[in-house]
Amino acid sequence: MNIFERIESDVRSYCRTFPVTFQRAKGATLEDEEGNRYIDFLSGAGVLNYGHNDPALKRPLLEYIGSDGLTHSLDMHSGAKARFLDAFETHILQPRGMRYKIQFPGPTGTNAVEAAMKLARNVTGRHNIVSFTNGFHGMTRGSLAATGNGHHRSAAGIPLAGTTFMPYDGYMGEDADTTEYLDKVLSDGSSGIDKPAAVIVETVQGEGGVNPASFEWLRSLEKVCRKHDVLVIVDDIQVGCGRTGTFFSFERARISPDIVLLSKSLSGYGLPFAVVLMKPELDIWEPGEHNGTFRGHNPAFVTATAAIETYWADDSFSREVANKGEYLRGWLNSLSARHSEMGVSTRGRGMIQALVFNDGDDADAVAARAFERGVIVETCGSDGEVLKFLAPLNIAKEELA
Amino acid sequence: MNIFERIESDVRSYCRTFPVTFQRAKGATLEDEEGNRYIDFLSGAGVLNYGHNDPALKRPLLEYIGSDGLTHSLDMHSGAKARFLDAFETHILQPRGMRYKIQFPGPTGTNAVEAAMKLARNVTGRHNIVSFTNGFHGMTRGSLAATGNGHHRSAAGIPLAGTTFMPYDGYMGEDADTTEYLDKVLSDGSSGIDKPAAVIVETVQGEGGVNPASFEWLRSLEKVCRKHDVLVIVDDIQVGCGRTGTFFSFERARISPDIVLLSKSLSGYGLPFAVVLMKPELDIWEPGEHNGTFRGHNPAFVTATAAIETYWADDSFSREVANKGEYLRGWLNSLSARHSEMGVSTRGRGMIQALVFNDGDDADAVAARAFERGVIVETCGSDGEVLKFLAPLNIAKEELA
Amino acid sequence: MNIFERIESDVRSYCRTFPVTFQRAKGATLEDEEGNRYIDFLSGAGVLNYGHNDPALKRPLLEYIGSDGLTHSLDMHSGAKARFLDAFETHILQPRGMRYKIQFPGPTGTNAVEAAMKLARNVTGRHNIVSFTNGFHGMTRGSLAATGNGHHRSAAGIPLAGTTFMPYDGYMGEDADTTEYLDKVLSDGSSGIDKPAAVIVETVQGEGGVNPASFEWLRSLEKVCRKHDVLVIVDDIQVGCGRTGTFFSFERARISPDIVLLSKSLSGYGLPFAVVLMKPELDIWEPGEHNGTFRGHNPAFVTATAAIETYWADDSFSREVANKGEYLRGWLNSLSARHSEMGVSTRGRGMIQALVFNDGDDADAVAARAFERGVIVETCGSDGEVLKFLAPLNIAKEELA
Amino acid sequence: MNIFERIESDVRSYCRTFPVTFQRAKGATLEDEEGNRYIDFLSGAGVLNYGHNDPALKRPLLEYIGSDGLTHSLDMHSGAKARFLDAFETHILQPRGMRYKIQFPGPTGTNAVEAAMKLARNVTGRHNIVSFTNGFHGMTRGSLAATGNGHHRSAAGIPLAGTTFMPYDGYMGEDADTTEYLDKVLSDGSSGIDKPAAVIVETVQGEGGVNPASFEWLRSLEKVCRKHDVLVIVDDIQVGCGRTGTFFSFERARISPDIVLLSKSLSGYGLPFAVVLMKPELDIWEPGEHNGTFRGHNPAFVTATAAIETYWADDSFSREVANKGEYLRGWLNSLSARHSEMGVSTRGRGMIQALVFNDGDDADAVAARAFERGVIVETCGSDGEVLKFLAPLNIAKEELA
Repeated sequence: MNIFERIESDVRSYCRTFPVTFQRAKGATLEDEEGNRYIDFLSGAGVLNYGHNDPALKRPLLEYIGSDGLTHSLDMHSGAKARFLDAFETHILQPRGMRYKIQFPGPTGTNAVEAAMKLARNVTGRHNIVSFTNGFHGMTRGSLAATGNGHHRSAAGIPLAGTTFMPYDGYMGEDADTTEYLDKVLSDGSSGIDKPAAVIVETVQGEGGVNPASFEWLRSLEKVCRKHDVLVIVDDIQVGCGRTGTFFSFERARISPDIVLLSKSLSGYGLPFAVVLMKPELDIWEPGEHNGTFRGHNPAFVTATAAIETYWADDSFSREVANKGEYLRGWLNSLSARHSEMGVSTRGRGMIQALVFNDGDDADAVAARAFERGVIVETCGSDGEVLKFLAPLNIAKEELA
Repeated sequence: MNIFERIESDVRSYCRTFPVTFQRAKGATLEDEEGNRYIDFLSGAGVLNYGHNDPALKRPLLEYIGSDGLTHSLDMHSGAKARFLDAFETHILQPRGMRYKIQFPGPTGTNAVEAAMKLARNVTGRHNIVSFTNGFHGMTRGSLAATGNGHHRSAAGIPLAGTTFMPYDGYMGEDADTTEYLDKVLSDGSSGIDKPAAVIVETVQGEGGVNPASFEWLRSLEKVCRKHDVLVIVDDIQVGCGRTGTFFSFERARISPDIVLLSKSLSGYGLPFAVVLMKPELDIWEPGEHNGTFRGHNPAFVTATAAIETYWADDSFSREVANKGEYLRGWLNSLSARHSEMGVSTRGRGMIQALVFNDGDDADAVAARAFERGVIVETCGSDGEVLKFLAPLNIAKEELA
Repeated sequence: MNIFERIESDVRSYCRTFPVTFQRAKGATLEDEEGNRYIDFLSGAGVLNYGHNDPALKRPLLEYIGSDGLTHSLDMHSGAKARFLDAFETHILQPRGMRYKIQFPGPTGTNAVEAAMKLARNVTGRHNIVSFTNGFHGMTRGSLAATGNGHHRSAAGIPLAGTTFMPYDGYMGEDADTTEYLDKVLSDGSSGIDKPAAVIVETVQGEGGVNPASFEWLRSLEKVCRKHDVLVIVDDIQVGCGRTGTFFSFERARISPDIVLLSKSLSGYGLPFAVVLMKPELDIWEPGEHNGTFRGHNPAFVTATAAIETYWADDSFSREVANKGEYLRGWLNSLSARHSEMGVSTRGRGMIQALVFNDGDDADAVAARAFERGVIVETCGSDGEVLKFLAPLNIAKEELA
Repeated sequence: MNIFERIESDVRSYCRTFPVTFQRAKGATLEDEEGNRYIDFLSGAGVLNYGHNDPALKRPLLEYIGSDGLTHSLDMHSGAKARFLDAFETHILQPRGMRYKIQFPGPTGTNAVEAAMKLARNVTGRHNIVSFTNGFHGMTRGSLAATGNGHHRSAAGIPLAGTTFMPYDGYMGEDADTTEYLDKVLSDGSSGIDKPAAVIVETVQGEGGVNPASFEWLRSLEKVCRKHDVLVIVDDIQVGCGRTGTFFSFERARISPDIVLLSKSLSGYGLPFAVVLMKPELDIWEPGEHNGTFRGHNPAFVTATAAIETYWADDSFSREVANKGEYLRGWLNSLSARHSEMGVSTRGRGMIQALVFNDGDDADAVAARAFERGVIVETCGSDGEVLKFLAPLNIAKEELA
């Protein structure tokens, strides 16, 4: 029995699907302890948009650590944090005409979701948060209450409160605009749906099965929220940082969320990091009201700064991602056309694309076969029927092919 | 207006007390951008037990990153994780005769607390968790429900449920054994206190004001829990990893918690990292029931392994910490004796020691004066009346002096 | 200032719409202290299906009290209770081929709703209860959580938990079968809707605006519940006891609820009384698990027995109610046709009928004018836009006309 | 199998202890269907302070019903209600110098408790309510959350939220003033006890085991509440209406509760009736915010008025109750002295007195033996170890003897 089986909790999961021990990684390639190589279409579930150990980020990281740069700083001022804030303002916010204040809520996505929920509740004085069917926002009690997955929810061991689930785009069939239903229950004083502080939404549901909301739907959602004075929180943790082709996934939808959450690929190097962006007038936080030990993880500030400067100083990377996304989508379309007998469909946006099978068994079988042939790809969706392609955005065209 | 004031959320806090920008750090010394140096008696609120950028950890970290070791691995097997598990088993668990399984619940303390609460609830089928007055366990909705601080609690914007607060050791006066009250309400079927899944307890309350529970009290608490079939969770996030002189803070109390939580100084380098230790029979997790993006933060595995091998392969470090703790305590005692007119008292255990003032103003004044003279030390306790000394454990004797 | 204004709480409400003091009542007629008479189309919000002080019930009530029959008996056996149970079994359950056990949960509707929710949760081990938009089930915290009205909900002063609201029949437009949506969220393990213990439903929503669910919808709802192993609770408090023409409102829909709630007109005399009917296999109550002071209100047993024997020993009353209902509906239809410029529509079932106005102002104006002319009728619906006709079922044809 | 066993839910309870069918009752005597007579020391669990079918109340009741007085009136003005309000103001409030407004929240105790909790939460904007160990306040979800009994609590099938239990007088031993603990947690911003809207307290815990709080403790409780701006709710449902010798149980303690709850013996005849008394400045209810079908139960208004006029127009009845209480207490003291080997103690106040046995078996045996000999008396307390004597207050001296 190896050390993992002997001593690691049974909760471990990915290692059961990919039962090797990884040692090294570079770009889109993982290497196990026997030297076998795998192309990574999982990317740390969206963490590695710039691939593993990107030299453009690795260099400043090594320099920073080598020179005894401050590693851990709580929420004190640090030079590395100042540089990150400056890069984020210069290259991300200003060119997009955005005005947000930035909170460092702790280094994981769920820290950011929890902080955003607190803020929305305090700003509005309301307790309810609207989440969407198949939404995924995290594992701590507040964020879990907004997560649809029943396997995760029941693990709470206590009823999850404070959220209302509404149907996501497409959930009631192609023709139904589910924001109309939301508008109706919010307009109806006897619907039983307590007026929410906010909606929290992913523009493309990742864990929920690669479900892209149409831009029209997102705009309509924003409109309904404005009408009822409800805040819009975009959870851009999985599909932000360029995954759909633009830095924020909602740019092409032309909506203006009140609160935006980033994590996963934000550090660009796999280092834990998360931020909450909030419109300045929402920043009613009192000092220290929300805190956390690892709010100041400076190595992540360093790599995040390098990632922004390397990839987002102009729009060339954005165009490259769009191109690759189209290429991938075309390839998946022709693949599913070739196997039309299986009833496979495709969906996605930019570089998050999926093959949707009839059931989880088919998807599992394909994933297993892919792994045998050196490709790491995971399934998602409520029955695991969706094969999710999440390659690094900077993967070489040949490797993608 | 600097970048922080312009763009960072008002929630920032420590930077208001220490209004400089830190750039570099080594051992117990922080350096700001103007080259001023400060002795660090804050240690990242307990994260930096081995000081800043300890060379014994920095070397393997640089090597690991330099050689493209896997940075981010979700919960897949990685070589770095295997080495951490091996070191933890060899140097921590086995010498102490402990048998625990290890869960990687995400890299922050609150991830660990939330996972432990879920597990306790699912193992027992009960929803209630007993926490203690002045306890601190985190900022996400589940852990926040177990945190006493009203400033943090009210920020939730929604009532916090699923916990019952009981008086901590000493809370009802010196003579009262508060575990008797716990025993009474658990024995009384009409007390209104729903039988809990677990108690969650710090052996020394850190944020709550440096309150050390006596070993007798901890043993009595364990006994009451055994009697009523209630799990014992020790939150050793702040005072574990050697802070009180032993690796686990409860070793000298000779109790055997069902679940132990570690984070903060676990990576030893300020890198986000947390684990849940659970008795093997409690490991009823189903694969993936609790997950999280940053469960596999390999640089933290690397430094944590180095920290264990460097400091915990034998008991010399433990003795050194005990000595320094006594020295510090003696010094604080004589200091408070010299200023007996101020009514200052001392308390603590090992290298977490405190001066307890009559009110927060006195403590603030001393902290501010210390900062002017190059010492960073923070206040805690419900009125901020406690000055908490949390130097790196490996601080040089002269620097400590 | 009269005694009411001086000393009764401002929460009083109906007395503001009908600002006279009532003294006496008989059949469908109320009389105020000045001798003015009013035809009662309110019927105590559904309590007085047999009118005020029905002689057939009054006689045995006076005899019972006169002979020192037991008034209050907790849940002890009393002769009056035995006679009620016998009559209920003989005239209500047996002729309909129904098998239910009967619980006396306390004398008000909300006592019954709360008991039913407890039972459903304990039988299934699940916490969630599905309620419907515009549903009304009571004012205590459990039943209020299942009530849609926001004015009532916000009065709780605490978030209401443990329920999920689904769209009632017709809520998403004429063409949408809202049970399909329910089926979808229950079939989808990631919908975020925790599998419920039960649905609680009114076959005609009374307070919610006189919304009759179609029999097809009710059957479809039952089918979805069976498919997912979810209990069906019919709250027949307002429209049971003959209001729609049959004793239970769901008889013609041919569904078989697991739990049925009766109150309001059950005593037939305006005396507080309520029961929970449950399929025998669901009766897992332990003795005394749910109790209450006024479970044994014997005068109500006496009048309820007389009401059953008088009105439900054969089906003549049922036919009479159906006839009157048709008459009333026809009259309302022609009235609304005559005033087609006002855009008024009609809806209802049996002897609960309504005129639906465009807004609450129109409905209020009509109700106020009716009161001036000696007719008491109330408005309901989420904007008060519905004028609800709820005459005694045994009102004389001429009086109805 | 009799009708009860065949068709009544297994939840029935008292009938198991007293397995006969009662038919008739007068004063302190119950009569079963075989003509056997029993002296009633249960009094409907506190409902029948004036005995069964008191002629002074029965006469106006028969007259009222006979003359077609309004039975059910929702919250409309009725003559019977006006007379009740007048009598209550004249004979109860004014002589005691009390100013309260009166709400009719529905006819049972739990309706009153739920309404009071809503009001307290809305007045203060806080969600928490402090209840006490062994307190009993009702079975609906809000009141149940404030009830200590675990058998009842677990029947909820969902965690009960919004309350905090504090130790009642004497709970921590004779010497400990438990209001000091309450003061401490309310004074300590990190105690984890959210500042409550109100405390809800019984001056003598009835179901909880006949525990009288000392007047000093009640005054101290009121003082702590005033200090922290917390409302005081006295649940006088079981021991109000003269049970302890004064109309309100708290008169001799000289406290001035913000909200007082009455039910049980309020109608004086066993008819369901309850009121919430609130200080005028707390009456922030909006019309109809809390409603309920049976708020206007006029027969209960009639008997309640007669009871007030008969028993409370002067203080003679009060003195009579005090005398009987002393007599009963003396008798129980000498009884327990005679059986000192059993370790029985006595406690109580006025005409709620108890014998406290070592365990529930002893108490059960005595109650069973009493029943055989024609005396009905129930057990209470968390282990059923308390025999509770709750005779009608107007029981004849000889019958009491």
